[in-house]
Amino acid sequence: MQAEVITIGDELLLGQTIDTNSAWMGEHLALSGITVKRIVSIADDAAEIVSALDDALTRSDLVLVTGGLGPTRDDITKAVLAEYFKTPLIMNEDVLRNITEWFNGKGLTMLEVNRQQARMPAACEVLDNPQGTAQGMWFNVPDSNRVVVSMPGVPYEMKGIMREQVIPRLQDRRVLPILCHRTILTQGIGESYLSELVKDWEEGLADKGVSIAYLPATGQVRVRLSAVGEKARECVDQEVGVFQTMAGNWVISDNDETLAFALGRELQTQGLTCATAESCTGGAIAGSLTSQAGSSAYFLGSVVAYSNEVKSQVLGVNQEDLKKMGPVSDTVVRQMAEGVRRLTGADYAIATTGIAGPDGGTESVPVGTVWVSIASSNQTWSKCLQLGQHRGRNISRAVSEAQAWLFRILRQDKSLR
Amino acid sequence: MQAEVITIGDELLLGQTIDTNSAWMGEHLALSGITVKRIVSIADDAAEIVSALDDALTRSDLVLVTGGLGPTRDDITKAVLAEYFKTPLIMNEDVLRNITEWFNGKGLTMLEVNRQQARMPAACEVLDNPQGTAQGMWFNVPDSNRVVVSMPGVPYEMKGIMREQVIPRLQDRRVLPILCHRTILTQGIGESYLSELVKDWEEGLADKGVSIAYLPATGQVRVRLSAVGEKARECVDQEVGVFQTMAGNWVISDNDETLAFALGRELQTQGLTCATAESCTGGAIAGSLTSQAGSSAYFLGSVVAYSNEVKSQVLGVNQEDLKKMGPVSDTVVRQMAEGVRRLTGADYAIATTGIAGPDGGTESVPVGTVWVSIASSNQTWSKCLQLGQHRGRNISRAVSEAQAWLFRILRQDKSLR
Repeated sequence: MQAEVITIGDELLLGQTIDTNSAWMGEHLALSGITVKRIVSIADDAAEIVSALDDALTRSDLVLVTGGLGPTRDDITKAVLAEYFKTPLIMNEDVLRNITEWFNGKGLTMLEVNRQQARMPAACEVLDNPQGTAQGMWFNVPDSNRVVVSMPGVPYEMKGIMREQVIPRLQDRRVLPILCHRTILTQGIGESYLSELVKDWEEGLADKGVSIAYLPATGQVRVRLSAVGEKARECVDQEVGVFQTMAGNWVISDNDETLAFALGRELQTQGLTCATAESCTGGAIAGSLTSQAGSSAYFLGSVVAYSNEVKSQVLGVNQEDLKKMGPVSDTVVRQMAEGVRRLTGADYAIATTGIAGPDGGTESVPVGTVWVSIASSNQTWSKCLQLGQHRGRNISRAVSEAQAWLFRILRQDKSLR
Repeated sequence: MQAEVITIGDELLLGQTIDTNSAWMGEHLALSGITVKRIVSIADDAAEIVSALDDALTRSDLVLVTGGLGPTRDDITKAVLAEYFKTPLIMNEDVLRNITEWFNGKGLTMLEVNRQQARMPAACEVLDNPQGTAQGMWFNVPDSNRVVVSMPGVPYEMKGIMREQVIPRLQDRRVLPILCHRTILTQGIGESYLSELVKDWEEGLADKGVSIAYLPATGQVRVRLSAVGEKARECVDQEVGVFQTMAGNWVISDNDETLAFALGRELQTQGLTCATAESCTGGAIAGSLTSQAGSSAYFLGSVVAYSNEVKSQVLGVNQEDLKKMGPVSDTVVRQMAEGVRRLTGADYAIATTGIAGPDGGTESVPVGTVWVSIASSNQTWSKCLQLGQHRGRNISRAVSEAQAWLFRILRQDKSLR
């Protein structure tokens, strides 16, 4: 089954909102064996919506539309769809009751524009949205097997409707193909080196019915292996095994996990805790770790020591060393890691100090210099990264390097026990 | 001038990478007076690339393509474009020299796949990419004024080529229309309430040639006003002024700034410093503040106090209170704010403690309960938010609420001085 996604909103074309919906839909449809063929973003404009729908329905059986369902006057999707399917908008009493309850439940006053949201195209099946006031709509295209689904653009509302309504309905409708993807996370090796490392194996993959894609991100490359058919899972699993043997220590996870998730799992499995002392990463390592549900099981806390006073007074970094070596130095980063470990009682601590940029560099310590340290009960490690000029990228790289390093140390320490 | 963006990559359709490139391009083209009409994402597939190019060239004068230029075998864009424009790939010695220097500069070994990246379509103008090994390409479509530009999918490489090569070339080519957008950031009021508040004014906007769009995000609504023509700036400026008078204290900024940026600017302008003590937000407030360049001027540091031990031993929260009131309480959040203010010497401190979820709630303190406190030299404020069930959204909401609250307190304290 082939699908196409249409995301509607002037703000997408003007770049004021990043479209995260279509990636989420692509991922969740793929897991159900539905291939997204194309993603199209257009303006809140009737002619554009009609043209995109016409095009999509020539190519795909399933067209998923998001956006343009809000209560304000720039939102026209519902009216355009009603006209497209030649069906009137009529007040839906069930929907009106739900919207009224939604407002009552929040203790908010319902406005006329919200009441109007209960007017629904007569020909659609309403897809209940318990998290907001704009309902989803399911249209069966007359005289065909094709379907158009419209959902609000607010990501969590769309996700709820997809999970609870759209995907179950699709699963009910037809037998979906068997397919399998697995994604391996590597860290610290560039895309072309990795490809070179596994070159001979990679050349033979197509003959085995397995396709490969490299997905590079800051400091990381994810490698996705895919296959279709009865033996897809078996095929992919086997090749993932071969890849892991070849790529060895570069591999962090073979199960499409993020680095923060893999690190958290490793800490939790080993019954260990960690803490961070962050200067140039400014809390981004802590933020990344605590974005994981259940992180309180292994993450104790962090000191974001942006000023020298916090470094010395909270983390106990020697003031003489701060002055003599400077805050971006081997000596200081090690004392930061040891300091936060002592302070929190964590088993392992990560520390960072550096010049994220774009300003603040000197000749001896240029922008992009970042010291990272890991402290455990019996050892403190440190290393210096030479990153680039771009603040956001330097912070991401430092977060990634520090997390991957702790991950590798945990794996190594475990093998030594 | 109308443009269309085509982003290429299986990973976009499979949802393994979120397309941030097209939003960035949309924003930067709009600033140059070029309207992005459509954004299309397709697979690394020759037939799809050709079909998307054909479609786009019927609608738009400028087609910007990103992705599929890497050194690995899933990247086919360059070969497809050469065939599309019926031009051979030939080794470009200048490009080869640049790539060789790029590898030498990083002390890395150059591979044969990287050497192949210097083979360029004979008919294109090469757009130099100093940040990577895949070059951009500019194709003038024969017998027309239309242009196809191809760039790598790595965001910072694309941005460099757009800024240094594509936009200057477009500016040289023709007189672009005069247009103006301004975006006002509001916080704490929902989209429909805001629209109701300014209803009469909003109805008269179209007659004045000004269009409006509401862009809701977690806890925030951005309102964009746009106009075209000689008097665009004047028109928009005047209506922004009217809106601000009506929306009053809900307005954080009238200049398309993020909340973190506006807060940082306010602190810096007033010569004040801040610090944070974060439990449930886990460093996300600190991370957001320090993502701004120059934040060391006003941000001193943070204690991420995930465990009770860190709350009492580092921040000095009373252990009896922690036990009696629980860590998610008015008493504790106030002591956290005051504690980190004392510890860092900051003028203002923000503290958060709550249950981000999805687990960890109790009957008396359900998931989504978040206490926020702000401490200054002469007052400590606190309030309790009742958020939802979704961890990521609860963290974002708490970050937004806390930052906006400090922003409003700063503005108020200033007016009292």
